[in-house]
Amino acid sequence: MPDVHTHSDQVLRSLRQSGPLTRGELGELCGLSRTTLYEVVSRLVDRGLVVATVPDTGPRGRGRPAERLALNPDAGRVLGIDFGPRTVRVAAMAVPHDDIGTAGEPCPPDAPWPERVALARRLAGTLTGGRLRPGVLDGVGVSVTDPAAASSAPAGRRTLTALIGRAFGTRVRLDGAARLAALAETVWGAAKGHRDVLYLELSDRVGGGLVGAGALHHGAHGRSGEFGHITVEPGGAPCSCGGRGCLQTVASTTAVLNAYRATADVPDLVAALRAGEPAAHAAVRRAGTYAGRVLAGLANALGPGAVVVGGELATAVPALMEPVRRELRTNVVRYGSQPPLLVRRAELGDFAAALGAVFLLRRPTDAASSKSGRTAFNPAP
Amino acid sequence: MPDVHTHSDQVLRSLRQSGPLTRGELGELCGLSRTTLYEVVSRLVDRGLVVATVPDTGPRGRGRPAERLALNPDAGRVLGIDFGPRTVRVAAMAVPHDDIGTAGEPCPPDAPWPERVALARRLAGTLTGGRLRPGVLDGVGVSVTDPAAASSAPAGRRTLTALIGRAFGTRVRLDGAARLAALAETVWGAAKGHRDVLYLELSDRVGGGLVGAGALHHGAHGRSGEFGHITVEPGGAPCSCGGRGCLQTVASTTAVLNAYRATADVPDLVAALRAGEPAAHAAVRRAGTYAGRVLAGLANALGPGAVVVGGELATAVPALMEPVRRELRTNVVRYGSQPPLLVRRAELGDFAAALGAVFLLRRPTDAASSKSGRTAFNPAP
Repeated sequence: MPDVHTHSDQVLRSLRQSGPLTRGELGELCGLSRTTLYEVVSRLVDRGLVVATVPDTGPRGRGRPAERLALNPDAGRVLGIDFGPRTVRVAAMAVPHDDIGTAGEPCPPDAPWPERVALARRLAGTLTGGRLRPGVLDGVGVSVTDPAAASSAPAGRRTLTALIGRAFGTRVRLDGAARLAALAETVWGAAKGHRDVLYLELSDRVGGGLVGAGALHHGAHGRSGEFGHITVEPGGAPCSCGGRGCLQTVASTTAVLNAYRATADVPDLVAALRAGEPAAHAAVRRAGTYAGRVLAGLANALGPGAVVVGGELATAVPALMEPVRRELRTNVVRYGSQPPLLVRRAELGDFAAALGAVFLLRRPTDAASSKSGRTAFNPAP
Repeated sequence: MPDVHTHSDQVLRSLRQSGPLTRGELGELCGLSRTTLYEVVSRLVDRGLVVATVPDTGPRGRGRPAERLALNPDAGRVLGIDFGPRTVRVAAMAVPHDDIGTAGEPCPPDAPWPERVALARRLAGTLTGGRLRPGVLDGVGVSVTDPAAASSAPAGRRTLTALIGRAFGTRVRLDGAARLAALAETVWGAAKGHRDVLYLELSDRVGGGLVGAGALHHGAHGRSGEFGHITVEPGGAPCSCGGRGCLQTVASTTAVLNAYRATADVPDLVAALRAGEPAAHAAVRRAGTYAGRVLAGLANALGPGAVVVGGELATAVPALMEPVRRELRTNVVRYGSQPPLLVRRAELGDFAAALGAVFLLRRPTDAASSKSGRTAFNPAP
């Protein structure tokens, strides 16, 4: 029933843009027959996305005022929570309204899970204006830095999911932060409009995510996206994974800082690059070259339409993209008729994973409405 | 309606295993109520997969003989045609019966397309026992070595599809040979039972295919699987693609033969390996090492459950797998709880692409029936 979905989107979009409307106005705006409109609206009312209201302006008794249809302000709320290493971030979305609010707060890396979840609940409360009552939430998408670590944490993956489910009284879906950032950049960010996207994240940890035909790729055991452990220097420096010469050993924030100067932090590196210090440029060039080679190999294998590079390092150091682009240009096979590969830095910043977590819970129907381009971001400070 | 699909499969499987059955026998065998069986059988009859027959054995008139249900011998036939560089191969499958026949014949590399298609039609005729009448075929899946080349061939991709469509009077779907071999190895071959599979083909051309969550990965422009053009030696030997140091320059059949001895052919190489000639072993080790590194990188990125290596070279030279396995063991990050990565040589041989082409046309429902394990292969000489 693709038509029903399209019509639902059309009706929701019209109510979003114009506010409450009578059935007559709505039918005209959407170009739908009375019968079709009746069916579509009934479904939306049944799903709780639309409510009928009678305005109490104007004098009563002189003819019944026309009933108006409006978006249900309590409906279809979805939360995305990103439990980062040092911050908890929340994105809240009212699906029929298609607008998003975000909030974040620092959280000590050693804080126990119940404390982090309580913080997330408080942040969600501020975003939903006290509307966070049981039954209001459609679901919570959760992002953790490393789903593998979350599974082996004292709370355990299942326990963590249950803990969050109890705190929010709704269903919970959990995924990895880099993978969710890939999804967010595809839906709303640098790769918007693409359906096959390769996303590399360069931060303390090097990881990534793959979107194929519009869907997040997970692999057989939910482990896809380990770009940081692709070998770039056989027999190279030892890596935390037990291997040697992994991309992570040359392109993580720490690796690049160490290659420049052992005591440097990111602002030091940025200042040194501005000052034209050769050691800083060499460190960045090396990281970008290896990152670019990994991306080129994956681009040959996967044939994406867009490559996006994000994370702390890519955000702070735009110069990193130059060797990345060069390696992609040199090493990706191209066919005459094919549009060029789009190569961009990530756009969504620190909230990318929380936004991706929101998308974990959106229904396929909802995805269509985001094409309207009216999605509003209110990045928190 | 997952139940309807499951029940349909059950009914088809019972008829396949037991031959014609009365409704009573069928209901008992499948454990279905009369009402459910009625619905399921009606659907199958409507789809033309099942027919009702009245046996004409036994004396007439003494009570009406019970009507029996049977698989429709003309139903759901699907063809897979692989237009290889020097051979045309056809696989024919009767979907409700779930059995497959194959036939192949050499064809000069410069034969014009109409001639190749006529050869395919003749081979298909021998497989379908003269049943290749209009309306009998559900579709034709077509495999070409390089879909890019097929598009730019004088016939052109669209023209080629139209030519085949006219010759067989049915719908046509076209895909790349390496990609279709990946699909076949996943459904029926070395990676049977897996849903996330990485397939590398080492022949004159080096390519491959990816299966993710049970589906073939195509990429943004249908170009995924260009494993042969992943750089393994930056600045290395020039490749046909215009790049340098691609996997194809070290791991194609030609590259390995040249690295051993310029005048050698595959049997020479195999003999030299048996005789323990160091140059032959070195050439194979180098190809396997680079192939293994590419696969390890992709396995980190994609997290497959199985890696399959196929093609002429892998078939002739089992020793190639040793360095491949070593590189995968050394370079793929592993988590404790995770089942080990399955690494195998391809099983389906020369007909893999034709079998994969058959699968292009099978419906999701049909896929379930192949789990019965009764699929019969009759590889042609």
